[in-house]
Amino acid sequence: MRTPRSAAPSYLFLHELAGTAGRRTLEGEDAHYVARVVRAAEGERLTASDGRGTLATLTVVHTRPDVVVEVAEVRRAPERVQNELWCGAPEGERADWLIEKLGELGVSRFRPLQLEREPWRDAQRRRERWERLSVAALRQSRSAWRLEILEPLELPEALSGIPSETSLRIVADEQGAFSAGPEEAAAQVRVAAIGPSSGFSAAERKRLAEAGFVPVGLALGRLRAETAAVALAARWAALDAARGPLG
Amino acid sequence: MRTPRSAAPSYLFLHELAGTAGRRTLEGEDAHYVARVVRAAEGERLTASDGRGTLATLTVVHTRPDVVVEVAEVRRAPERVQNELWCGAPEGERADWLIEKLGELGVSRFRPLQLEREPWRDAQRRRERWERLSVAALRQSRSAWRLEILEPLELPEALSGIPSETSLRIVADEQGAFSAGPEEAAAQVRVAAIGPSSGFSAAERKRLAEAGFVPVGLALGRLRAETAAVALAARWAALDAARGPLG
Repeated sequence: MRTPRSAAPSYLFLHELAGTAGRRTLEGEDAHYVARVVRAAEGERLTASDGRGTLATLTVVHTRPDVVVEVAEVRRAPERVQNELWCGAPEGERADWLIEKLGELGVSRFRPLQLEREPWRDAQRRRERWERLSVAALRQSRSAWRLEILEPLELPEALSGIPSETSLRIVADEQGAFSAGPEEAAAQVRVAAIGPSSGFSAAERKRLAEAGFVPVGLALGRLRAETAAVALAARWAALDAARGPLG
Repeated sequence: MRTPRSAAPSYLFLHELAGTAGRRTLEGEDAHYVARVVRAAEGERLTASDGRGTLATLTVVHTRPDVVVEVAEVRRAPERVQNELWCGAPEGERADWLIEKLGELGVSRFRPLQLEREPWRDAQRRRERWERLSVAALRQSRSAWRLEILEPLELPEALSGIPSETSLRIVADEQGAFSAGPEEAAAQVRVAAIGPSSGFSAAERKRLAEAGFVPVGLALGRLRAETAAVALAARWAALDAARGPLG
């Protein structure tokens, strides 16, 4: 009897893909995923992404004793809008699913924001787990891009490092208008700041306003930090999907 | 030294509010929440909602030996769009946070959908937990409305019970268009069906199409069931917030 096939996505994340056509032996987690999780058969074709916009088609040569694949059709995915989310600490374990959901919804970069009222206590410790969640989200969404997890920063440092081409800056605010106007859909780079459950301090709000962050409401009710972040990610995912590939 | 006040929202859910002005003794969870969680002081004013659109202002008379409040200013919240989500079973424990997020984002009704490829195995067993999560979401979002959790149904039964005034019917579909058109924003009642992680069967897709459900994509990537549901809830929350109160 044939072993039932796994329901795991036959979509791989590989750290290096660019310029690597030809035969290749997979190691570690990559080998494990192909042989044990997807249970790929000899001759099976899989798609792989490096999470930085390079895609390839792989053909499984064999999975024993080691996992060897033939890499073909290395190609670039279309460029996409750069969406960066800065987020104050949510309560409890909610950051894990926040990372998973931002990854699935195609956010480019996530930055834990160290704020006055609510510091992140475990951003460093959870880093490895978050990287795994962002890989799982890439496989789930079959994306060419992986959520990049940035180092935690305090607000002034985050603001001083903001990319100069950033055309849209939003701060989630239940008192804000419910639209950032037509420039939200048309932007090439977006950055949003989401407060922690206890909110931004007055000084932080002032700094954000001075840096050109527009207050935007996301719903009629008051949202938890992670809910606001996911709501904004969903909004941008819809805008970007409707818009189609860039350039 | 004064005991530090709790960060819990001083916004209550009470099962009965309509027509109950005057002095009232709270019991069970309601009393516990006021005295032990919020740690309300004598004379403090709280807002309460019955989750069905009735709001009241309460003044705490005393919290010992029993919790007595004075109910004043009983009023109706403005009517709102009715948003109903039907959802196939997500993987693992993801239904719990799905309920929490749909509650925060102001979804009116949630129905577990029993589908061919993926039945809900624990919708009955988790019912009590989900009710608690929907109460917590009401408090968090300070909403007059609570997410109503409907009985699990198979698709034909769900379709036969659909409210006749439903003006918008959507099925989440990664192959669908990324917009349901201007009627999505203008609808008074919306119903959306979200498949399980393994997707709808061909027969289920056909039934949904025959019942007027329009396929709509929510992002460029493939989303998990619960991510699609939350993304749609966020989209409707934004549309309804921008639109303002009905009628």
